[in-house]
Amino acid sequence: MRIIETQPERTDLPLVVVPNIVDAMLEPFTGTLDLLRDVARVRIYTEPTLDEDTLVERMEGAKGVVIIGFHVSDAMLDRVGDHVGCFAFGGTGVASYINLIATRERGIRVCNVVHYGDGAVAEHAVALMMELARHVGRMDAAMHVGGWHGEDGVSLEDKTIGLVGFGGIGQRMARIARGFGMQLLVWNSHLDVQAVRDLEATPVNDLGELFERSDIVSLHLPLLPDTAGLIASEQLNRLRPGTLFVNTARAEVIQPGALTSRLQRGDISAGLDVFDTEPLADDDPLRTLPNVVLTPHVAWRAEAAYASLTRQLSQSLAAYFKGESFNIAN
Amino acid sequence: MRIIETQPERTDLPLVVVPNIVDAMLEPFTGTLDLLRDVARVRIYTEPTLDEDTLVERMEGAKGVVIIGFHVSDAMLDRVGDHVGCFAFGGTGVASYINLIATRERGIRVCNVVHYGDGAVAEHAVALMMELARHVGRMDAAMHVGGWHGEDGVSLEDKTIGLVGFGGIGQRMARIARGFGMQLLVWNSHLDVQAVRDLEATPVNDLGELFERSDIVSLHLPLLPDTAGLIASEQLNRLRPGTLFVNTARAEVIQPGALTSRLQRGDISAGLDVFDTEPLADDDPLRTLPNVVLTPHVAWRAEAAYASLTRQLSQSLAAYFKGESFNIAN
Repeated sequence: MRIIETQPERTDLPLVVVPNIVDAMLEPFTGTLDLLRDVARVRIYTEPTLDEDTLVERMEGAKGVVIIGFHVSDAMLDRVGDHVGCFAFGGTGVASYINLIATRERGIRVCNVVHYGDGAVAEHAVALMMELARHVGRMDAAMHVGGWHGEDGVSLEDKTIGLVGFGGIGQRMARIARGFGMQLLVWNSHLDVQAVRDLEATPVNDLGELFERSDIVSLHLPLLPDTAGLIASEQLNRLRPGTLFVNTARAEVIQPGALTSRLQRGDISAGLDVFDTEPLADDDPLRTLPNVVLTPHVAWRAEAAYASLTRQLSQSLAAYFKGESFNIAN
Repeated sequence: MRIIETQPERTDLPLVVVPNIVDAMLEPFTGTLDLLRDVARVRIYTEPTLDEDTLVERMEGAKGVVIIGFHVSDAMLDRVGDHVGCFAFGGTGVASYINLIATRERGIRVCNVVHYGDGAVAEHAVALMMELARHVGRMDAAMHVGGWHGEDGVSLEDKTIGLVGFGGIGQRMARIARGFGMQLLVWNSHLDVQAVRDLEATPVNDLGELFERSDIVSLHLPLLPDTAGLIASEQLNRLRPGTLFVNTARAEVIQPGALTSRLQRGDISAGLDVFDTEPLADDDPLRTLPNVVLTPHVAWRAEAAYASLTRQLSQSLAAYFKGESFNIAN
């Protein structure tokens, strides 16, 4: 097992442990560790594990812990809560990964990272939209085994895209859509009026109306109590035949099963990066629908996002040890 | 065999024959035939053929002929040249499909269509770029057979795209790239100064330098005597590892074999819609390279292009019969 440790001789400094990491994050993360020089020594375990005992063992003696790719159960928290003072979570939506109330009661700080993936997610939404419009991946697969069978595409210029959610990612998507010469409809609970004006977007208050007027619909909502189950069959039924539907946000903003039912009618197509259960079950009906393009929750996984995410992790930990505030989630 | 004929009773009108058509063009084309009302009757053969005798037979009595998907050999021209007065070609690059000098000597007009596919081609170039950057098609193929294996992507924001060719398609591509927040380098024999300024592009006079400075290179040159073989190994060798290379223009602007050799080194990836020989040979080495995404010359095949192309065909024929000039190529 390979362990990377910065400043190992500085046992006077508090210890930060990264008990699990994904390969792609290793290089960007080590590139940010200068932010912790003379603040904390960092120990990174490069061999992945999701085993609870192993994770707890690796966290031994740590004051700071980076959470990447695993959940901190309440039981795990009991086992490490006596020495860990700060958990830095490598993502947004930390509430699904650790008990925020329990950590607060123990006086443990939990940090998340924000907006790190806005560009990466918007660009992935475009990639899904392009595959739905032009079928490059499907034709490429056929070309690699011989033959010469082309498919017609859908044009995007002058089409209308409906953006559900108009925060950091939605606005990024809007700028790209403007470059294509598309018309923008936007729905958001609290609209950024300046962004609406700058991007020449048209606000639509009724979600069903937005669905009906759009040639492409792309979701860019965070998962919040307000947005969970926001989209129901009622709205999905108003999508016109031929609509391209893209979800890189969260599956839970749609009522369970509603999208699959709508897609099974076969008259619209969808590009989906997020699912009610992840990993997606091998026998999920979405896997076999011909009008669906699937990716395994990778929208944020591009180098710009890794760079921003890992930098924020180091900044959060440095702030904790210096008694400053940064990205505190609990 | 199904034959569609407009105004069949108007035998006083000259006959236009469409001896071969692709399915996707049928509906857009019939939608434009009002332009020929009281000008010419139109007979469309909907069953495809590339057989020379059948094509000649179908052209019998025609004053106007639409060329879609077949070549008019000099021998075929001899057989129909006594009655055909105008060939309207459904594409650009008509010189590869009929002898322009021989038709001019016979006093036969040849028309082509222009700029019909600018948007469609630029959007397909984006689709190829997105597949190279985000691998949606590859992940989707894997997801459809089970599993959950993600791949990291390349971010596009702040990257530099080098556009070789800055006419209608190149400028369309530039606008889309600006929407992504990319930097633009452009090379063209005659630069449209206003477009360079509007799109905040940086002209680069040396093609090798443009290749070296770009994270993405996309070709948007027409095939002309000046551009044939313009790009050689010398320039391709200056592409940096990790570069995404896209060609939706013409394979012949690159010296034969030079791109395949460069790609076989494996350190760059390419999205290609055009090939030296089309259809691409089943045993072409490009078919098996893992760093290449292939589509079968479909970049122009989107509905906006079909609409513009078929409209121009009807406009060309109407102009011919009315003694006006429109899209004359010879």
